[in-house]
Amino acid sequence: MAVIGFIGLGNMGGPMAANLVKAGHKVTGFDLVPAALDALKAAGGSVAASASEAVKGAEIVITMLPAGEHVRQVWLHQGGLIDVVKDTKPLLIDCSTIDVDSARTATAAAAEAGMTMLDAPVSGGTVGAANGTLTFMVGGDEEAFAKGLPILQGMGKNIFHAGGPGAGQAVKICNNMMLAINMIGVAEGFILAEKLGLDWMKLHAICTTATSNSFALSNYCPAPGPTPASPANRDYAPGFMTALMLKDVKLSQAAAEATGVATPMAALAASLYQATVDAGDATKDFSVVFRLLENMKRG
Amino acid sequence: MAVIGFIGLGNMGGPMAANLVKAGHKVTGFDLVPAALDALKAAGGSVAASASEAVKGAEIVITMLPAGEHVRQVWLHQGGLIDVVKDTKPLLIDCSTIDVDSARTATAAAAEAGMTMLDAPVSGGTVGAANGTLTFMVGGDEEAFAKGLPILQGMGKNIFHAGGPGAGQAVKICNNMMLAINMIGVAEGFILAEKLGLDWMKLHAICTTATSNSFALSNYCPAPGPTPASPANRDYAPGFMTALMLKDVKLSQAAAEATGVATPMAALAASLYQATVDAGDATKDFSVVFRLLENMKRG
Repeated sequence: MAVIGFIGLGNMGGPMAANLVKAGHKVTGFDLVPAALDALKAAGGSVAASASEAVKGAEIVITMLPAGEHVRQVWLHQGGLIDVVKDTKPLLIDCSTIDVDSARTATAAAAEAGMTMLDAPVSGGTVGAANGTLTFMVGGDEEAFAKGLPILQGMGKNIFHAGGPGAGQAVKICNNMMLAINMIGVAEGFILAEKLGLDWMKLHAICTTATSNSFALSNYCPAPGPTPASPANRDYAPGFMTALMLKDVKLSQAAAEATGVATPMAALAASLYQATVDAGDATKDFSVVFRLLENMKRG
Repeated sequence: MAVIGFIGLGNMGGPMAANLVKAGHKVTGFDLVPAALDALKAAGGSVAASASEAVKGAEIVITMLPAGEHVRQVWLHQGGLIDVVKDTKPLLIDCSTIDVDSARTATAAAAEAGMTMLDAPVSGGTVGAANGTLTFMVGGDEEAFAKGLPILQGMGKNIFHAGGPGAGQAVKICNNMMLAINMIGVAEGFILAEKLGLDWMKLHAICTTATSNSFALSNYCPAPGPTPASPANRDYAPGFMTALMLKDVKLSQAAAEATGVATPMAALAASLYQATVDAGDATKDFSVVFRLLENMKRG
């Protein structure tokens, strides 16, 4: 069992750290929000007065932060975590979903200080974090991945090694970009179908066995009815919030911009999720884009 | 076994009629192209000198024609097939993929003459037609569907009853519209992934078990490598031609226009498949849109 420093104990990081405690690890956490510290204490972990103190003596340091800027702030610069742990050289794991460039910058800075950092963003949302069923997409070399695997298994179910540094972030944004597009496609198909007089249950039964099948269709139908477990059946309570999907699609567009890749469908998807957020549905499940499209006038 | 008149013996209709002969039916066919008549003769069917002659005494009349205008020409107006068979009252089955309005117009005209017509478009392409493994999406009432089912089983494997008149066409265009969108989504994801340094095989292995999975991804990957059977691995030989996918997406857009439904993603998909056709790839598999996107400059 490992000594772990865990920075960022929010909606995701909190339950992830608690699951590491449950798995038998010695976890010391830090967050700027006092209530988050209390929650980790209640779960049996230790808390620290600062990030630097939390990682003292750790064999593994994990961060779970909102965005690339926070990851750069926490890890880089003089007095950043890489500086703090450069003598003890723990394995570094960043579980935040951030831009590929920030991930590679942090990884390179770690390498320069003689350490390995895995980029290990997750999918599965707060439910997956609480239940320890997250999916991890991990970038980094084989040896570091092998070392991080038993730790990640304490927080997730499917742990994928996606490739070298940054590959975890890259797979996650490509996956979510494709999901974002598929979901809107299903929404448009079901709205058109309804206007053509089709029964959604029949359409769903046929299309899930046909060439238009997708996870968005078979497990996450944005029209209420066909998939009882999907957010569409409970007024789009998340699930995966529109604001987070928009963040990921924007990350994909930043990466596409940086690499000069044309992504016309993803760009349109980004603007449709932006419109969904603007319509007040940022905290609804992203499949609520269905409702935006239903109310949209044909141009 | 039934006496069948079959009009339209092209790339799809020819092998479909031949499979009905093989299933033991007495098939008399007609086509404007002499070679198509020869092929049906060689397969053991009879041929007629006109459409009217082909349907004489038939219990079932099947049409397989390129577009709505042909279906209206053949079935409607004085001297059209409905007029010709109005005394013998066979079951009418139109297997063409056409606009929902034309399908409903033909069905209504048949009903007025005291006959039932099923709209029964197919998917599965020329390979499915030859092997008798087509999927049929069928619109029409229960009784007519029950009567048509054993006939359709002679040509296909999955026969779905989609709902009342026009529902077969409606399901087909909704299905193909969603497929059209999913395919471009996968293409954009894989092109971006490559520029981010990801390995396509790893990306595919991860995403097929994740939330971005789709038939387009798991069975029909537009990037060469991950799915060996897909057209991407043989220079995009079809498969399902771009020209036909464009036709179907345009049908979906005509239906969306007629019903006032906003389909921004499908509209963009239509323009991307149009650009693929304009680039000279009309007869390649529609997944060749991958190549269009690869060559596209980010705007």
